[in-house]
Amino acid sequence: MPSLPKRIDILEEGPREGFQYEKGPISTARKIELIDALSATGLKTIQIVSFVNPKLVPGMADAEAVAAGIKPASGVSYRALWLNQQGFERARATGRFDLRGSYGIAASETFQKRNQNRSIAEQQADNQKIITRFKELGVPVERGGIMAAFGCNFEGDVPVTRVVEIVGMLLDTARENDVKLKYVMLADTMGWATPLSIKRVVGAVREKFSDIELSLHLHDTRGLGVANAFAGLEIGVTHYDAAVAGLGGCPFAGNAGAAGNVCTEDLVFLCDEMGIETGVDLDALIECAKLAEDIVGHPLPGSIKTGGTLARMRAAQKTAAHA
Amino acid sequence: MPSLPKRIDILEEGPREGFQYEKGPISTARKIELIDALSATGLKTIQIVSFVNPKLVPGMADAEAVAAGIKPASGVSYRALWLNQQGFERARATGRFDLRGSYGIAASETFQKRNQNRSIAEQQADNQKIITRFKELGVPVERGGIMAAFGCNFEGDVPVTRVVEIVGMLLDTARENDVKLKYVMLADTMGWATPLSIKRVVGAVREKFSDIELSLHLHDTRGLGVANAFAGLEIGVTHYDAAVAGLGGCPFAGNAGAAGNVCTEDLVFLCDEMGIETGVDLDALIECAKLAEDIVGHPLPGSIKTGGTLARMRAAQKTAAHA
Repeated sequence: MPSLPKRIDILEEGPREGFQYEKGPISTARKIELIDALSATGLKTIQIVSFVNPKLVPGMADAEAVAAGIKPASGVSYRALWLNQQGFERARATGRFDLRGSYGIAASETFQKRNQNRSIAEQQADNQKIITRFKELGVPVERGGIMAAFGCNFEGDVPVTRVVEIVGMLLDTARENDVKLKYVMLADTMGWATPLSIKRVVGAVREKFSDIELSLHLHDTRGLGVANAFAGLEIGVTHYDAAVAGLGGCPFAGNAGAAGNVCTEDLVFLCDEMGIETGVDLDALIECAKLAEDIVGHPLPGSIKTGGTLARMRAAQKTAAHA
Repeated sequence: MPSLPKRIDILEEGPREGFQYEKGPISTARKIELIDALSATGLKTIQIVSFVNPKLVPGMADAEAVAAGIKPASGVSYRALWLNQQGFERARATGRFDLRGSYGIAASETFQKRNQNRSIAEQQADNQKIITRFKELGVPVERGGIMAAFGCNFEGDVPVTRVVEIVGMLLDTARENDVKLKYVMLADTMGWATPLSIKRVVGAVREKFSDIELSLHLHDTRGLGVANAFAGLEIGVTHYDAAVAGLGGCPFAGNAGAAGNVCTEDLVFLCDEMGIETGVDLDALIECAKLAEDIVGHPLPGSIKTGGTLARMRAAQKTAAHA
């Protein structure tokens, strides 16, 4: 029998992933409606918007208004994404966010260059400056990330040894800057992971760096998202990124094959049924997933919102037995 | 690292599951078109129709015409489903089928009664007659099945000990009738299994009956189909039922939560990427999945037909590198 973790932490990224991806337009009020509903499910960490160029990402042009409009729930850490200093300043100016610093490197030289216009070595050098800036601003730096850790549309399979090497680079940068990382994120950015490669990569990283916690960011491009998350659970990974209803991509978008993160409520269902705590009320989260479908106006990928939970099924049986 | 099997056998049930489930109408010619396309993918065993009451299942009223119309491919075993003697005689009369006998018991008394109007004990007694009839007709009996082996919408969770007990009943009946079963099928008829319960149930069955092969029939009602198949692979299960494109159910059918078997091409993709042979040409199978969508006229659940294979991605990279 696998040794599953007792509990996991989920970073909910649905609002940010979804509103950025959907053609829309979606009103600011409806975005706020979903975020406030998610805040009442027990999710502790919710990434709600990104502060990016509104010309490139029109769906995030109202990021400030969304941030201003939510009813902050006690115990919920609201997060934002930014890609540069300007974006960070916009996030900070709202006063709404639990600001956390992170830095990263792609495991693929080509992907690194295409996305940041820097080589891996240049990104590592730049990460020094990024950390310095966060420290000056008093923002805790808690995460190092590896993009394309399981494969890359431009370079193909990524050798496990390279991922281990890049974890080393991230940890070197942390040490040189007196930063104690909370965890290192392994991102399957383009949907190349399989349950087997999850186990191989995580196993190899841990063999070299036994004391670092890991998180998994799993895109469901090829239908293996939940199986990959299960593989992570089997080897005790305790941090997962996820998106309510699988927001952030749509399998019905023709051959584009866009797909968002693993679906939060399907992950919570899997955990509930295997005795792993998430702190999330699955019924409330399923209502959020249905709300998300209503807001975007088309079906979203998650399964349990349609299939129905087993907890409800068991409760109905109990009621029937006592009637 | 898990010890995965070197190869698995897939029983393709898409045509039978799909044409029986879809509202249709679907023309006989198009049914034949899909079956002939599937026959050219490397799939060795394809269940193409069921011989059931056409008033209850109008989509199968043309079962004889479908059977007569296909171009039987060499090396492909065509299978049919029947529920009684009359259905069996209809299948036999076509001369098209590789007739195989099977018998089964549900792990839930309520489900057994609702589906067959017999108790578990009555079904066990009846199985004697079923086997006797197959033997008289010279039809090899190769499978014992357990329906609702992981849970039941009417009774809830099924104790592992009960599944082990029912495997014993099936094997007793085989022994008493001098039948050597090829395998015992564990069916997650109503989508209650999790990767963990797959491992628990299979483990418990093997502990008691070490020499019996198992097959898994996994409905994807709650999005865990592929994860459950992976759990089966991890513990070396080598027989799987599957349905091209996830035919046989539709997550977009409102709250009914109907869902077919685990999607064949997603399962083949998972196996390809983990080095497990299936004998199936994934590209050809994906074309069948797209054909199935065209035939039914709405999106079907499978993911890899939208996401695209990694083999293609790698080939494109090689071509680009040599250009």
